Amino acid sequence: MLPDFKDMDGFRALLGAAPGPVALAVEGARARNGQLTKPPGALGRLEDLAIWYGGWRGSDRPAINAAQVIVFAGNHGVAAQGVSAFPAEVTAQMVLNFQAGGAAINQLATLAGARMDVVALELDRPTGDFTTGVAMDEQDCVAALKCGWDAVDPAGDLLVVGEMGIGNTTAAAAICTALYGGGAADWTGRGTGVDDAGLDIKTRVVAQGVVRHSVDARDGLDILARLGGREIAAMAGAIAAARALSIPVILDGFICCAAAACLQRTEGMALDHTVAGHQSAERAHAALLAKLGKEPLLSLGLRLGEGSGAALAIHILKAAVACHSGMATFAEAGVTDG
Amino acid sequence: MLPDFKDMDGFRALLGAAPGPVALAVEGARARNGQLTKPPGALGRLEDLAIWYGGWRGSDRPAINAAQVIVFAGNHGVAAQGVSAFPAEVTAQMVLNFQAGGAAINQLATLAGARMDVVALELDRPTGDFTTGVAMDEQDCVAALKCGWDAVDPAGDLLVVGEMGIGNTTAAAAICTALYGGGAADWTGRGTGVDDAGLDIKTRVVAQGVVRHSVDARDGLDILARLGGREIAAMAGAIAAARALSIPVILDGFICCAAAACLQRTEGMALDHTVAGHQSAERAHAALLAKLGKEPLLSLGLRLGEGSGAALAIHILKAAVACHSGMATFAEAGVTDG
Repeated sequence: MLPDFKDMDGFRALLGAAPGPVALAVEGARARNGQLTKPPGALGRLEDLAIWYGGWRGSDRPAINAAQVIVFAGNHGVAAQGVSAFPAEVTAQMVLNFQAGGAAINQLATLAGARMDVVALELDRPTGDFTTGVAMDEQDCVAALKCGWDAVDPAGDLLVVGEMGIGNTTAAAAICTALYGGGAADWTGRGTGVDDAGLDIKTRVVAQGVVRHSVDARDGLDILARLGGREIAAMAGAIAAARALSIPVILDGFICCAAAACLQRTEGMALDHTVAGHQSAERAHAALLAKLGKEPLLSLGLRLGEGSGAALAIHILKAAVACHSGMATFAEAGVTDG
Repeated sequence: MLPDFKDMDGFRALLGAAPGPVALAVEGARARNGQLTKPPGALGRLEDLAIWYGGWRGSDRPAINAAQVIVFAGNHGVAAQGVSAFPAEVTAQMVLNFQAGGAAINQLATLAGARMDVVALELDRPTGDFTTGVAMDEQDCVAALKCGWDAVDPAGDLLVVGEMGIGNTTAAAAICTALYGGGAADWTGRGTGVDDAGLDIKTRVVAQGVVRHSVDARDGLDILARLGGREIAAMAGAIAAARALSIPVILDGFICCAAAACLQRTEGMALDHTVAGHQSAERAHAALLAKLGKEPLLSLGLRLGEGSGAALAIHILKAAVACHSGMATFAEAGVTDG
């Protein structure tokens, strides 16, 4: 059973109380890996992935049969400042597209055999503009965290969280600047494809937000509330719920990782049940992955969000687990072990 | 209908006569890509892959429903010189493992929805030791090319060729040294995992073979016969047959790419219907991919052969095609195009 929380401190307490991997399953999976019909190490990262996954699922011979993709959507006060190449109404239009099955993530989730859920968070009530006030007060942020927390299927065995929200690379850049320092220009990129003038505006907006909020922010979750957005908080809530349920998570691109970074800043081990699905073409994503200490599985120049890169990486994790759990051992196959 | 060949010159003629992509399908696919509900370029390499695939299949909205994985196995005279961490009988043992479904490639082909065929080429008659004579005379090499040529399903729509053959990274290193020059040490790696002493032997064997055969070799196919092996020639034959049938190919690791390199040296456009599935951990594979002018889709530290890395990349190509052909356009979805 998934526990519940009423306020930000309740969420903080659950983050700190989250379970770790099962050491015995890790040992068992490592032993099995050494007996499979292949030269030692010849499956490269697939071997580590399978052992890691088995540890979190408490099995030395795990399976992936119930992957879930959740796409969260939210609108942003800062969008009004012209930080995106697309108008804010595209968020709601794309939610309809997700529901009708027409977006990239629909095709990718189907191909990966994953269930897909779409959660739109108060699209007609954008967050506050963080250059003039907080994006979300505590109550709003807790509601969004809870929305993500409750969206995770407790019967799932793998989670991908994606997002849609015009303006949300601006919010993610502000979060990263507040968390890691450096200049706003280091963390601000072109998102859906703003031109040079748009990038200048965006960088200035990020810098203004960070100046306004950094000093007062008490931890990662406070930064999330002040500078983030509802879909970003919901992603953080879902990643935390997956941890409480021992469900491994594949992280997506820049915005998903910014959400994850807020959890990690608040609780250092909070992302141990996650892998980085891919390195996005959004310029600061590589630096953010380095801050998180995560090596991406894929690097194919994607910069779409929606959970697309992580959904693509489901296949890699499934392949790792299929090899680990399905291959014959040297003894079973009668193959001479070098 | 697939044409036939009787000798090496017949094969050379077919290589030169192979069809190219359909320009109209490339244009149509490019136009469709520009209308899909995503920012321009946001799917990165997936967009190029889908357009490329559509061009070869002659469709602006293609599908992948009949992927085929063929694993070729052969034995090598040079194996007797102690170039591998495993004894030569492992080739035949692994063929039984493939047939019983216990190898990594079985799990990967199944996960990718691909049909898998196993073709063992005269395992009880290893090729000649190339340090003392040719690995294959013309008749042997033509028979192996034909074996690969005939193994391709004309009704397939995507091909992966893999291999098993104790000693075959030695043969592949000799092929690369003969084709591209440099020292034998530049192209010789640890294969299944030889130790330092084994690597020294292996490098010396490669150097001896290249000294013996380079001067006389008249083209890539002659190098293939003199230094290669039956499973390597069969892979080359299958890649060429796929081209004649307009079936795109995903290249696997070092040995598969060495086979492909012999075709490219003989006919410069012979690999235009191929993509590199992955960069293997075998040390010279990155350099070989650079010589082929191919950017790998994956880089996960695999070094197993069997077609494993390419089979994993089937998912990437399927994802590219699924997005391209399944997504809604801006007009269909009523989404505002930025």
